[in-house]
Amino acid sequence: MAGNTFGRLFRLTTFGESHGPALGGVIDGCPAGLLLDLEAIQLELDRRRPGQSAIVTQRKEPDTVVFYSGIFEGKTTGTPIGFAIHNTNQKSGDYSHIKDSYRPSHADYTYDAKYGFRDYRGGGRSSARETASRVVAGAIARQLLAPVRIQAYVSQVGPLQLGKSYEELDLSLTESNPVRCPDPETAKAMEACIREIRKEGDTIGGVVSCVIRNVPPGLGEPVFDKLHAELGKAMLSINAVKGFEYGSGFGGVYMKGSQHNDAFNPDGSTKTNHSGGIQGGISNGMDIYFNVAFKPVATLIQAYETIDKDGNPVTAQGKGRHDPCVVPRAVPIVEAMAALVLADFTLLNRSVKL
Amino acid sequence: MAGNTFGRLFRLTTFGESHGPALGGVIDGCPAGLLLDLEAIQLELDRRRPGQSAIVTQRKEPDTVVFYSGIFEGKTTGTPIGFAIHNTNQKSGDYSHIKDSYRPSHADYTYDAKYGFRDYRGGGRSSARETASRVVAGAIARQLLAPVRIQAYVSQVGPLQLGKSYEELDLSLTESNPVRCPDPETAKAMEACIREIRKEGDTIGGVVSCVIRNVPPGLGEPVFDKLHAELGKAMLSINAVKGFEYGSGFGGVYMKGSQHNDAFNPDGSTKTNHSGGIQGGISNGMDIYFNVAFKPVATLIQAYETIDKDGNPVTAQGKGRHDPCVVPRAVPIVEAMAALVLADFTLLNRSVKL
Amino acid sequence: MAGNTFGRLFRLTTFGESHGPALGGVIDGCPAGLLLDLEAIQLELDRRRPGQSAIVTQRKEPDTVVFYSGIFEGKTTGTPIGFAIHNTNQKSGDYSHIKDSYRPSHADYTYDAKYGFRDYRGGGRSSARETASRVVAGAIARQLLAPVRIQAYVSQVGPLQLGKSYEELDLSLTESNPVRCPDPETAKAMEACIREIRKEGDTIGGVVSCVIRNVPPGLGEPVFDKLHAELGKAMLSINAVKGFEYGSGFGGVYMKGSQHNDAFNPDGSTKTNHSGGIQGGISNGMDIYFNVAFKPVATLIQAYETIDKDGNPVTAQGKGRHDPCVVPRAVPIVEAMAALVLADFTLLNRSVKL
Amino acid sequence: MAGNTFGRLFRLTTFGESHGPALGGVIDGCPAGLLLDLEAIQLELDRRRPGQSAIVTQRKEPDTVVFYSGIFEGKTTGTPIGFAIHNTNQKSGDYSHIKDSYRPSHADYTYDAKYGFRDYRGGGRSSARETASRVVAGAIARQLLAPVRIQAYVSQVGPLQLGKSYEELDLSLTESNPVRCPDPETAKAMEACIREIRKEGDTIGGVVSCVIRNVPPGLGEPVFDKLHAELGKAMLSINAVKGFEYGSGFGGVYMKGSQHNDAFNPDGSTKTNHSGGIQGGISNGMDIYFNVAFKPVATLIQAYETIDKDGNPVTAQGKGRHDPCVVPRAVPIVEAMAALVLADFTLLNRSVKL
Repeated sequence: MAGNTFGRLFRLTTFGESHGPALGGVIDGCPAGLLLDLEAIQLELDRRRPGQSAIVTQRKEPDTVVFYSGIFEGKTTGTPIGFAIHNTNQKSGDYSHIKDSYRPSHADYTYDAKYGFRDYRGGGRSSARETASRVVAGAIARQLLAPVRIQAYVSQVGPLQLGKSYEELDLSLTESNPVRCPDPETAKAMEACIREIRKEGDTIGGVVSCVIRNVPPGLGEPVFDKLHAELGKAMLSINAVKGFEYGSGFGGVYMKGSQHNDAFNPDGSTKTNHSGGIQGGISNGMDIYFNVAFKPVATLIQAYETIDKDGNPVTAQGKGRHDPCVVPRAVPIVEAMAALVLADFTLLNRSVKL
Repeated sequence: MAGNTFGRLFRLTTFGESHGPALGGVIDGCPAGLLLDLEAIQLELDRRRPGQSAIVTQRKEPDTVVFYSGIFEGKTTGTPIGFAIHNTNQKSGDYSHIKDSYRPSHADYTYDAKYGFRDYRGGGRSSARETASRVVAGAIARQLLAPVRIQAYVSQVGPLQLGKSYEELDLSLTESNPVRCPDPETAKAMEACIREIRKEGDTIGGVVSCVIRNVPPGLGEPVFDKLHAELGKAMLSINAVKGFEYGSGFGGVYMKGSQHNDAFNPDGSTKTNHSGGIQGGISNGMDIYFNVAFKPVATLIQAYETIDKDGNPVTAQGKGRHDPCVVPRAVPIVEAMAALVLADFTLLNRSVKL
Repeated sequence: MAGNTFGRLFRLTTFGESHGPALGGVIDGCPAGLLLDLEAIQLELDRRRPGQSAIVTQRKEPDTVVFYSGIFEGKTTGTPIGFAIHNTNQKSGDYSHIKDSYRPSHADYTYDAKYGFRDYRGGGRSSARETASRVVAGAIARQLLAPVRIQAYVSQVGPLQLGKSYEELDLSLTESNPVRCPDPETAKAMEACIREIRKEGDTIGGVVSCVIRNVPPGLGEPVFDKLHAELGKAMLSINAVKGFEYGSGFGGVYMKGSQHNDAFNPDGSTKTNHSGGIQGGISNGMDIYFNVAFKPVATLIQAYETIDKDGNPVTAQGKGRHDPCVVPRAVPIVEAMAALVLADFTLLNRSVKL
Repeated sequence: MAGNTFGRLFRLTTFGESHGPALGGVIDGCPAGLLLDLEAIQLELDRRRPGQSAIVTQRKEPDTVVFYSGIFEGKTTGTPIGFAIHNTNQKSGDYSHIKDSYRPSHADYTYDAKYGFRDYRGGGRSSARETASRVVAGAIARQLLAPVRIQAYVSQVGPLQLGKSYEELDLSLTESNPVRCPDPETAKAMEACIREIRKEGDTIGGVVSCVIRNVPPGLGEPVFDKLHAELGKAMLSINAVKGFEYGSGFGGVYMKGSQHNDAFNPDGSTKTNHSGGIQGGISNGMDIYFNVAFKPVATLIQAYETIDKDGNPVTAQGKGRHDPCVVPRAVPIVEAMAALVLADFTLLNRSVKL
């Protein structure tokens, strides 16, 4: 219950700090008999990896996953899949400036308040490095879910909005640029914006949008564990996320029911999809789509005023390697969390009827 | 795992359909020794009750809660609190028109897809009537949480936005008007808007905002069960919700880190509060505030085209008693769910240190 | 986590004290589409009911179950089944003698130690009356499990042992006598023994044996949630149980592996069944059988010395209506708990393979 | 829910197969601030280790635990403790004889029935090697629990019974002989018996007894999660266990209530302890004691008849390195599982009162 496990039947438990010997996790409940494409898993990790382009953090971590169990002759055995990603590039010296003071809008203060002390190296457990484990598990969930297709992309960086719905975009272009925005023109502007922000030693927020296709009707549990409620929790559990909306979202507030209701076609599909593929917390077979808002990350390469543990004012200097905007690297994380949610509900749904 | 339980240590399990004999629930894990104010619980139910004003559904259900267990000599005993709200005003006849067809943007189609059949009377389990049980449990959680103070209010109805932060408002005015908007002028405009919408037999969306004060630092579990992730799930599990944002929310996307970071005061409080009282998923002692977006509800008092179970087109006529805008009645539900989340994290937090 | 929920996918949460207005529960996760035989459920309750024969407690409680939800047109809907059993014969006066003192070997002392105070009327939550809710849920589980067949019976009362394996018995005779021992001769001796004990105002222990047939291979989760581990927990959670053994049990300790190993037949069945139908925590398709030891219940109709809350010695007089030997009424409870375990594992097993 | 996690607040999730690269686990929920004695943890592993004496399996595995996370400056941080034990001595060749046939009374057949195929090397996930991870976690739980004292010992090997209660024994002698029986005379006889059995290529059953002292009153959750029910489940989840009894156990069946009831002393302790330190599922502060029955393990060094996957009869020859009697090595495992149960209930108990 300490919050390091996600899912009910398809469960991921993660461990690991930013600067400890290794991160990793245990996937429990993956059905037996799934032929794993291990390269595809590593590929997802590479999409999240630091140092992959000029606009992300320049740390050089290879992030190679090692599997310890649960796979035999290339297939999942139904037993837990233990895995680790060994940390190879810990520059603990980079973080000595945060040992005795609290960085504004980081988790330094709250971890101390909660636990009495903290592993301060690189943010310890609060580092987004933890999401590498989620990407590994998400990549396996994805293989389980085929032909369900999960595609995320960057739709906003600071004030630069993509301004098109996912249906107007060619999502195969997402990986064609370092921003992971499927519109080449907008991507260029976003990239320029991020480079500018980096020069300032500053950061900027962004939005990741995601669309999930080929979802069968019936996924999601009514009442508390609605499909969109779990998707929302999954997304909000990613570092730096401040908001989640699906289907018509906050924009739906302005609409009347007569505009918002999705009329049926004879085959059960709907003419419009303001519902975002989910009605009453259960998938209806239409595309699921949602937006995830990320704040500007708190790590700046600037001098700043703050306090130490005793409340004394101190001046500190942000340094090290950081992401000026997290959304490009957040794209595979959003996809991974969506995959975990859907895998779990897919298994849960096997038990709802005689 | 079928989704009818919320919480880990302070747990609510609900049961009941809109038109069955009773709704209710079991609260397991409420600590022993809490002197309950039963009137205050009923008062919260009354705030959610149909028929309370001219702008909500005109059903006349008294919604009286009966407690079966877990309370002795006025105090909680630490054993499960079972309770029921008997349904007294079921007009099943009102709903016969939906027996054989699917109402657009309702859960009729998806329940059938999931379970093979459904209790169609009044929406069955998918009815928002289920939230009455949440309000009962939330009212108990609230008493457990004192002096934590949870206040929700309506901040938008259709295009009418309140346009003020919670700090600029006198929240003691929230209950002074049927809309539950603490700004009397805006409340009047919202009320007029809702009356207009009702005349059209239509519905309109809205936003409920919520602020939580006096939260001690340290609540929330890092990684998957971040405080805001559970709050988000809790809100998204309420009927008709399409979005959730906390702190700077979607607006934070536009900001730079240098603007967004909340500088510390010597006492550990922060000069600004873009973080919304939560850093790294853990409360920092500042006010927690968030917004919840509600779509226009799907029940219209209009004729509409739809399909039956076999995909044949049918014309139906919406009728019965409904809410033209759910946000006024959603205010106590948002508060209840927030209370459940905080009560759970408060108990969980007792185990994090030696 | 407060211990009032049993099961993972087929989940029962119970509430209620011996002398409150009602006991009951919520069954969450029963698959949709099960045509319920409501009479059969009530029949199981009648088997557990006080006052059913001369050798059990003479309280006269009808124990009628009322269902509130989750059933529509006679079938389960997949939504939670809420139910209550109203208490109709509370003689609170009978229990005033225990308000201020601790009965030896009851839970009076430990409830006070844990919660600070307790509902002392009739044992409150610690009363075996709670098992009525288990019997309701078990009866539903049983209908879900058909053709799995669960049969329990009394195999020992005090020193009187049945001395035959289940295969040597005609279990259709179990209900032919008030002791629920399928061997008529032994039953008579046991009945005489119990009558004698009752005259003394004393109580006596006993053993309930249980056999489960037609279990498909594959049920049970390896490692912590082995099938026999959950069965053991289920049985040990019944009031007054002191021990559990399955298959060869404590007797298997004396054997050599060469005697104990169950050789295979060509069809995968085994020539012997020391394994008790479970290997490595997973059912193998053979009969599952186990024994459950019950202590003599602590309620005596005798004077006794004890202490009050302040540790002062007091003399008290046991009175009221009680069971001189619990095993006859424990038979349907053992069956109910076995059914809950098997229903849960049956649903869990739907997710283990692609 | 796939059964590889134990505990609610103090949770262990294990992974790993007998012959994979590593076993290990994640401990989630260990409170922050516990100064760990890492040597003491390794010492517990050494007590479970193969090859430690002439009467256990002669495999030579060092079983060294490596910690990956959750410990900083020697203390637990409150974040998950990930750990691994790398397998160094896998002789996969030894097990090729079981690839295509089912060993009697092993889990080969049931794993195939459940999952469709299995990692057959050394029993894969069904190997008792998995318990090494439990010993690591149990050793940490133990340090958390101090001054609670958990002591297990061998009380029976085949027909050789110790025949003394724990109070008549000097448990400091348990580690003085390879059998782990605290009575030197009986230990010698047991050791001779095991040597004899080994010569025959056979195996023999046994009983491990355990006593837990200094348990505060109040641990255990009533109804389903009674303290002894969780202890029972914990013990029954250990490989080869067939039975569990606590306090008076199966022997209590023969007693009358007037003999069995434990009269109170003025300080709340009891004059006798047939209850075994638990009343109503909650600890009462007296010693907790219980017995665990182990069957003779199924691995024989003899020729045997069995079937292959297609039901064809085959003759096979047991070989490799094995334990003729598991109870000596089971002693630290029983202690570890008891520690996990108590640690979990200790944390849960922090939330039961205001």
